[in-house]
Amino acid sequence: MSASAALPSLEALDTPALLLDVMRLDRNIARMRAHLAPLGPRLRPHFKTAKCLEVARRVMDGQEGPVTVSTLKEAEQLAAAGVRDMLYAAGIAPGKLNRVTALRRRGVDLSIVVDSLQAAEAVARHSRDTADRLPTLIEIDSDGHRAGIRRTHGDLMVEIGRMLHEGGAELRGVMTHAGESYHCHGDEAIIAMAEQERAETVGCAELLRAAGLPAPVVSIGSTPTARFAQGLDGVTEVRAGVFMFFDLFMAGLGVCTTDDIAVSVLATVTGYNAEKGWIIVDAGWMAMSSDRNTRGQAVDQFFGLVCDVDGIPYPDLVMIKANQEHGVIAARPGSTAVPPALPIGAKLRILPNHACATASKHDHYNVLKTGSRQIDAIWQRFNGW
Amino acid sequence: MSASAALPSLEALDTPALLLDVMRLDRNIARMRAHLAPLGPRLRPHFKTAKCLEVARRVMDGQEGPVTVSTLKEAEQLAAAGVRDMLYAAGIAPGKLNRVTALRRRGVDLSIVVDSLQAAEAVARHSRDTADRLPTLIEIDSDGHRAGIRRTHGDLMVEIGRMLHEGGAELRGVMTHAGESYHCHGDEAIIAMAEQERAETVGCAELLRAAGLPAPVVSIGSTPTARFAQGLDGVTEVRAGVFMFFDLFMAGLGVCTTDDIAVSVLATVTGYNAEKGWIIVDAGWMAMSSDRNTRGQAVDQFFGLVCDVDGIPYPDLVMIKANQEHGVIAARPGSTAVPPALPIGAKLRILPNHACATASKHDHYNVLKTGSRQIDAIWQRFNGW
Repeated sequence: MSASAALPSLEALDTPALLLDVMRLDRNIARMRAHLAPLGPRLRPHFKTAKCLEVARRVMDGQEGPVTVSTLKEAEQLAAAGVRDMLYAAGIAPGKLNRVTALRRRGVDLSIVVDSLQAAEAVARHSRDTADRLPTLIEIDSDGHRAGIRRTHGDLMVEIGRMLHEGGAELRGVMTHAGESYHCHGDEAIIAMAEQERAETVGCAELLRAAGLPAPVVSIGSTPTARFAQGLDGVTEVRAGVFMFFDLFMAGLGVCTTDDIAVSVLATVTGYNAEKGWIIVDAGWMAMSSDRNTRGQAVDQFFGLVCDVDGIPYPDLVMIKANQEHGVIAARPGSTAVPPALPIGAKLRILPNHACATASKHDHYNVLKTGSRQIDAIWQRFNGW
Repeated sequence: MSASAALPSLEALDTPALLLDVMRLDRNIARMRAHLAPLGPRLRPHFKTAKCLEVARRVMDGQEGPVTVSTLKEAEQLAAAGVRDMLYAAGIAPGKLNRVTALRRRGVDLSIVVDSLQAAEAVARHSRDTADRLPTLIEIDSDGHRAGIRRTHGDLMVEIGRMLHEGGAELRGVMTHAGESYHCHGDEAIIAMAEQERAETVGCAELLRAAGLPAPVVSIGSTPTARFAQGLDGVTEVRAGVFMFFDLFMAGLGVCTTDDIAVSVLATVTGYNAEKGWIIVDAGWMAMSSDRNTRGQAVDQFFGLVCDVDGIPYPDLVMIKANQEHGVIAARPGSTAVPPALPIGAKLRILPNHACATASKHDHYNVLKTGSRQIDAIWQRFNGW
């Protein structure tokens, strides 16, 4: 990435625009790596947040991976760029197996996930039909959050494992996502959730091994548990994605500070309502997303926390309403903070509640360094499926 | 649009996928036209919901417009397709005036919106600098919802009008958006809001005229007020967008029924949780959006109402949770409805809370007819700015 005279400064950039502070990105990546290194497992970063090749290259161990994907479109784009070690971490729909096979025939070690006998049977049959042992992980429900098999249903898990292993697929191990960590209160609760995630998943791998089945991979992952895990014995890899960018939800959870948030939306002041103390900007939910996940946290950030053009937060200034292309900015309800007197045309940066959701509204990142107003590079995103 | 053997049936379509029922679309358009015709104003349909040329062609009076846009990207795409009469209906940021001029130099009658002296001054200056009288509407705040000048601030409005008219721009009139109609309860309240929207906006036009200023255009618009307006005397045009597709929010407001909703997301069952009564599908918030705008209505539709593959709603079956690429489907809390027993790989359609938000997550529509499972056409969307 080199500075280009052809790229605009923030003053000249069309708005709304997605900004990515590459120095914060690199710092967030380094911090996660430093935390995980002494614990043992390798990092299989989740591509779902960034969906951007340049970010993948900064966060992966090497040019070929490993990486986690949330869509086959991501896998196809990464494969075209030479990435070879991928886990598609959502339960496979049988109708998607042909796309999996097409990727594997291009030399990609793409593994998939099942959590039912029906899906395992479809994967085994497809493996036989294509003469390719599809590497498959069994999803474990470590916290009641979403999908997966609970450890207490070990018999079912072993049956699924046997269906895969004896039916023609490659049983590669187990994986989980402790999504309930997003609802923990306090460091101690996240530490406990990380240990629960580890223990449940390692326990399931042991159940498979005790039944004579292979389980070389034990894959866990969520950004909160990855950041707070104290020990990861028995875990072979950690998947996490939002840690690269962080967001207000993660800050509310205590997993980062607002100074760590690497993505923001640049907006322009288009009007004001002096009576109501409102500033109107040209970024609404189309630029920020409709995600209101901080609503249930101690500090509700509404549609985003407002910063000056250089990214320094104003006290208690938030986007209190978002229409499609209009954002309404005001002091947080209950605050005595006075919104800044900004002329029409002034620029602001807005930190997102949920980086994955906000980034998904844009097709590229405007990349810059902390403290700089010069865009240094444009990095494309891969949206869609 | 003709049936193409190369396009898939719903059974073969990759999921998640955005579906558009063209028969419902056409019926919704015809119904709005039939409602407005005896009332007088022309329809300037809002492009923000569909962002699709084929939809624009079905809803516009003619090939050249008129149409309303929410972004200059929409205007640029429509201009390339020959549309010539457009209103960019969000307060103009001065930094966008060069793009407005570029479009006008291509022969587009693109009008813009201001609601402050500062913005009016920038528009007047730009008009003089480019020797092009930019057609400009003053935004009126008819309901305290968002932006605009209140009628009680008539002096300021006249001052803005004079700044435009005498400063080198073309004062074309007034416009408003009665966004508070989204929070009305019952038909009578929407009818009253429609009359308030009309009266406030026409009243503002009369204030300008009384001051010797031109105000040929009186532009109002929101889907609820457009559908419920009983009289539109003095109004010259109506802007509305979501009426083409409708959504659960509009159904909750009584503006349509679920049978009118023309867009849905096709999803595939990837798993289930028998204990919890959950069905897991491969459509999460990335496919549905995070919009939870029915949360405050009498019936909360969570992340969407679930239908069978043909679009027939299941009783009380909703997407109760949405992660990025996972949706959790279950009976609405409090309901005794039993979720259907569906095999893995089965397909479902999910009706959206907010059509604009859900459609924005996709780059194209899979177009089909009511009752058919065959995709007849692919229509591209224009996302971004």
